[in-house]
Amino acid sequence: MVVESRLIGPVRVVGAGLLGTSVGLGLTARGIDVILADASPTHVSIAVDLGAGRRATAGDAPQLIVVATPPDVTASVVAAELAAFPDAIVTDVASVKLAVLAELADLGADLSRYIGSHPMAGRERGGPLGGRADLFVGRPWVVAAHDAISYQRAGAIDDLILDLGATLVEMTPEQHDAGVALISHVPQVISSLMARRFIDAPSAAVNLAGQGVRDVTRVAASDPDLWVQILGANAAPVRDILVAYRDDLDRFIGALDDPEAPGARRRVAEELAGGNVGVARLPGKHGTDKRFTTLTVMVDDRPGQLARLLAEIGEIGVNLEDLRLEHAPGIQVGLAEIAVLPETVEHLTTELAARGWRIAG
Amino acid sequence: MVVESRLIGPVRVVGAGLLGTSVGLGLTARGIDVILADASPTHVSIAVDLGAGRRATAGDAPQLIVVATPPDVTASVVAAELAAFPDAIVTDVASVKLAVLAELADLGADLSRYIGSHPMAGRERGGPLGGRADLFVGRPWVVAAHDAISYQRAGAIDDLILDLGATLVEMTPEQHDAGVALISHVPQVISSLMARRFIDAPSAAVNLAGQGVRDVTRVAASDPDLWVQILGANAAPVRDILVAYRDDLDRFIGALDDPEAPGARRRVAEELAGGNVGVARLPGKHGTDKRFTTLTVMVDDRPGQLARLLAEIGEIGVNLEDLRLEHAPGIQVGLAEIAVLPETVEHLTTELAARGWRIAG
Repeated sequence: MVVESRLIGPVRVVGAGLLGTSVGLGLTARGIDVILADASPTHVSIAVDLGAGRRATAGDAPQLIVVATPPDVTASVVAAELAAFPDAIVTDVASVKLAVLAELADLGADLSRYIGSHPMAGRERGGPLGGRADLFVGRPWVVAAHDAISYQRAGAIDDLILDLGATLVEMTPEQHDAGVALISHVPQVISSLMARRFIDAPSAAVNLAGQGVRDVTRVAASDPDLWVQILGANAAPVRDILVAYRDDLDRFIGALDDPEAPGARRRVAEELAGGNVGVARLPGKHGTDKRFTTLTVMVDDRPGQLARLLAEIGEIGVNLEDLRLEHAPGIQVGLAEIAVLPETVEHLTTELAARGWRIAG
Repeated sequence: MVVESRLIGPVRVVGAGLLGTSVGLGLTARGIDVILADASPTHVSIAVDLGAGRRATAGDAPQLIVVATPPDVTASVVAAELAAFPDAIVTDVASVKLAVLAELADLGADLSRYIGSHPMAGRERGGPLGGRADLFVGRPWVVAAHDAISYQRAGAIDDLILDLGATLVEMTPEQHDAGVALISHVPQVISSLMARRFIDAPSAAVNLAGQGVRDVTRVAASDPDLWVQILGANAAPVRDILVAYRDDLDRFIGALDDPEAPGARRRVAEELAGGNVGVARLPGKHGTDKRFTTLTVMVDDRPGQLARLLAEIGEIGVNLEDLRLEHAPGIQVGLAEIAVLPETVEHLTTELAARGWRIAG
């Protein structure tokens, strides 16, 4: 079913990686004519095969151009696109906004047809094969407003964002860069530095690792080449936050130098309690995590058991909001973590237990 | 079915929190008589109701005692148990080992009947209600060897660990404390300090947060009171690693002070690449993650659709190794991430597509 789009195509996407391909998939799903371009013909082929759009042809007249290239080359690609298509509005989706705008100004590009933006979305699996039509649904998409573009022209970017299901957030380039420094760039650095501590660690020690440290260091597997570009382009805001972090860390080290000194324990407790406060300010996953209650049901590791459980939940009349299946290694049972509305959990528990299911927690 | 146990009961568990209740549940499942004790009668009641064991009675003669109390009181509880039950072997499961052993030596306790241990297992949901019989399955359980206990007596702890499905890892108390400092205690500090940066941040900034920073700061929600005890008891190893981390961070800040200086970019890239190397040394979840390939199937958000998908996967004859269902907010479809053996994914993809399922990636 094609939902009526606000955008008028064609939309030209330059850069068929994760973001570009996802933009193409999302717009194609809405019946927009999407043109795909990339320095790599292979990326274009894959993206076309995935249904993200068509190859560029002479005579294309895109209304809107989305540049989805690595940060180092984004400004020059935007400038080239502005020059090649004098009637198009151009946006980019790079993780930094001020550096791109500043470089475009230096290049003398036509800023009256450019406005930067940044979708706060991504996946561990990069490249065109990671692309998803719904990658941006429910996610914030920042528009980095500036004075040189008219409200009417900038409207094309708004339509793009809304068509892809994202939430439009307007900020200045400076506000954007400070924001992503805080909730994306600095966490990347912090995580990578933590993981570096394991390089020469004894195997016996690293083999003790549990879920906590895996969570803290998951993003340490990110691509260094991409992040060098991002951090280079957002160095000042990132540095300022790292300095504040380092000062906090120094105080913490001081408290541990003499843990029995008066006030040392209290200082440590305050730092940790502050962490509780800070993390509580982050929005939940999809913004909806906290609405649901989780029930854990043990499922024998025999074919069809999980399907039977889900069918019975449906028969009981409770809606399954989310599901995660975990295999406990070494024993022939899985743990199905079922998220449901809190008001249904008591009824569901009673009914499932009556049907012989073992509730773990 | 009661699997033949190596242990001879009764086993007395002191402290009916997450770990103690899980020990009780696991041993009860193996037909062992478990005695539960806790300073809180409510915790005991809940644990008994969950099936973790029975209340203590006069005349109990436990062979083995597991002390599962907070770190600050563990040594004194162990000493009291050693005195109250002169024929029992006693272990504790606290997150620090040297401090407990040292305090017991100071108290003049009978170290010939005590050996400390530490199961590397846990859950976000604490307390007895979080207890699970299989909490320790496949997880490392460290035994902190020392000279005062005989090999034969220490064997009771080995039996406990094996009966609960864990993997026995022997270390000295010093090796243990250095190991957990590296892969548990320091990551906790690093994560909490990161989360503190959000306390006074603009809402617009924190609302940009995505999965990466949520992973980095997930453990920042941990209980400060518990962690003050842990960090206080393991201060020196934690401090040493934090100092090394702080030195790395200082170098990183220096590179960002002037990102265009010769060598600055290279230094940043090396630090990030080091993070890649370090995180790759951590064992995968359950140690089996990497064996499976993930296939993502779109599932309409109508009752019974997920059950139908699972039933069809069973019909196709492929074994479902793991499953994660993700609802993309705002649109009426879910994404089922199915983990299967790599050699089956092509066949499964073909068959599911033929049956009309949409494969997302």
